[in-house]
Amino acid sequence: MMDVEFLAEVQEAFKSIQDRQISALCEFDGALDVVRDRWDRPGGGGGDTRILKEGRVIEKGGLNFSAVEGEVNAPLAQQLSTEAGRFAATGVSSVLHPNCPHVPIIHMNVRYFTLDDGTWWFGGGIDLTPHYVIPAEAKAFHQDLKAVCDRHAVADYATFKPWADRYFSIPHREESRGVGGIFFDHIGRDGKANRQEVLDFCLDLAGQFAAIYVKRAEPFVQQFVSAEDAEWQGLRRGRYVEFNLVHDRGTRFGLVSGGRTESILMSLPDRAHWTYDFQAKPGSPQAETLDWLRKGVAGVDWLAQ
Amino acid sequence: MMDVEFLAEVQEAFKSIQDRQISALCEFDGALDVVRDRWDRPGGGGGDTRILKEGRVIEKGGLNFSAVEGEVNAPLAQQLSTEAGRFAATGVSSVLHPNCPHVPIIHMNVRYFTLDDGTWWFGGGIDLTPHYVIPAEAKAFHQDLKAVCDRHAVADYATFKPWADRYFSIPHREESRGVGGIFFDHIGRDGKANRQEVLDFCLDLAGQFAAIYVKRAEPFVQQFVSAEDAEWQGLRRGRYVEFNLVHDRGTRFGLVSGGRTESILMSLPDRAHWTYDFQAKPGSPQAETLDWLRKGVAGVDWLAQ
Repeated sequence: MMDVEFLAEVQEAFKSIQDRQISALCEFDGALDVVRDRWDRPGGGGGDTRILKEGRVIEKGGLNFSAVEGEVNAPLAQQLSTEAGRFAATGVSSVLHPNCPHVPIIHMNVRYFTLDDGTWWFGGGIDLTPHYVIPAEAKAFHQDLKAVCDRHAVADYATFKPWADRYFSIPHREESRGVGGIFFDHIGRDGKANRQEVLDFCLDLAGQFAAIYVKRAEPFVQQFVSAEDAEWQGLRRGRYVEFNLVHDRGTRFGLVSGGRTESILMSLPDRAHWTYDFQAKPGSPQAETLDWLRKGVAGVDWLAQ
Repeated sequence: MMDVEFLAEVQEAFKSIQDRQISALCEFDGALDVVRDRWDRPGGGGGDTRILKEGRVIEKGGLNFSAVEGEVNAPLAQQLSTEAGRFAATGVSSVLHPNCPHVPIIHMNVRYFTLDDGTWWFGGGIDLTPHYVIPAEAKAFHQDLKAVCDRHAVADYATFKPWADRYFSIPHREESRGVGGIFFDHIGRDGKANRQEVLDFCLDLAGQFAAIYVKRAEPFVQQFVSAEDAEWQGLRRGRYVEFNLVHDRGTRFGLVSGGRTESILMSLPDRAHWTYDFQAKPGSPQAETLDWLRKGVAGVDWLAQ
């Protein structure tokens, strides 16, 4: 049996997190246009997608809340390794693409899944994709994530950090997507965790998202942008598109299993760019960034930088 | 045993096709910059990628010749349903992205595959992706492809045309990529075809590629481009990226099996664009194009238009 009362509590909490993220981002940006798109899922449930547009800092942001339920069909049964008959899932995903190439892209997600065999679990994470990697910034970002994890017995930065390194990598480029972050999944599925404690961790993480981003964005908002910077931003956005469409399990599963395409692909940047066999000039900031991203495939201990 | 003499003959013929396509396209365009990138494949063989850039008509073209060989590893054995030990493959792929949104995108590929159990086959096709669908243009394009097929007993437009409709579709958008064309694979694998006849068909098709494109491109090269046209082109290019990265079997197999990333992704446009939940104005040329592309999922009989 599903615990529908706890499910409703998680849904409410996630919905409220989405609202608070939007308020905080609008206050920070000062010029964002917010478009709201509520939608129903044919099989059951629905969602609320908000698009942030044409701001001072944020060019395009997508924040999606969903609360869906339905039958466990064949692809889902395979994906989840389950024989349960029905599922319910709720989550919030947020992706921010900034105007300025000196400001990083950020992504966060928290989600809760439960089956009618009574099992449940949480998953999620936050990762940062700077167009130009600055080690001190990556370190400060990871310090913030570690601080959130350290407040919760159910969260382990030492486990979740390398999990993000494995997940947010682009094997066909032999690069990481960015400087990583934390990633976790199936937390609680073994029946050993206290679900309120896992929920509290997810809410703390998602609740910190806007503040964590603002610290990494604000100092760079006014920085001068050369034509070369803009070009490089387009190329890095192309890599972001490649990761999401080729490798990201959530995106791919959503697209092939009949998820809502527009809400799934809200994570893509407004514009992206591909140049055949781009070669960064040795010693340039672009070359330095590529060095970090290549090291990122195996994982970089940012806290030690 | 592989017939290495015939393999060498196919390689030479494909290489020469690539040269002739480039000559014809350069002559037509008049202002193309050609960048050549020869490469080796770690496991055996290599290729010759040519990028056409910044022309009068063509913004970015990628023409790739490859002749590779090696051991049949696990993913390849699964992909090919074979227990053979070694393979050789050679092919030419060409993709042209024009500057002007009134000029269509085009793609063609011919390839030959042989295994050390003595089996061999050809595959390939041509498909057209107009940013704005014009039925008379789609009809003329399909007439040209049918004419090529009709010259060869081994080619059947009535089989290859719906094959392209099935292949070049974007299920998560419920749209076809464009107005289709022809697609074929495993021709000769059943041991019933004459390989010289299949090669002749492939060479005829690939040999007609530039002429077929020029007829569809030339009348539209000078057409006025509004800001709305440019925006729409970016969105359609976004769909092209989605098809190639999410669905195209050749691209996906290449990326996950360790193919040469830059040569595989030369098919992507220089720039692409995503707008959340774009809605075409009823009655607009964009809405008409979307209608055709939605019909294209089931297949449109362009010859009857």
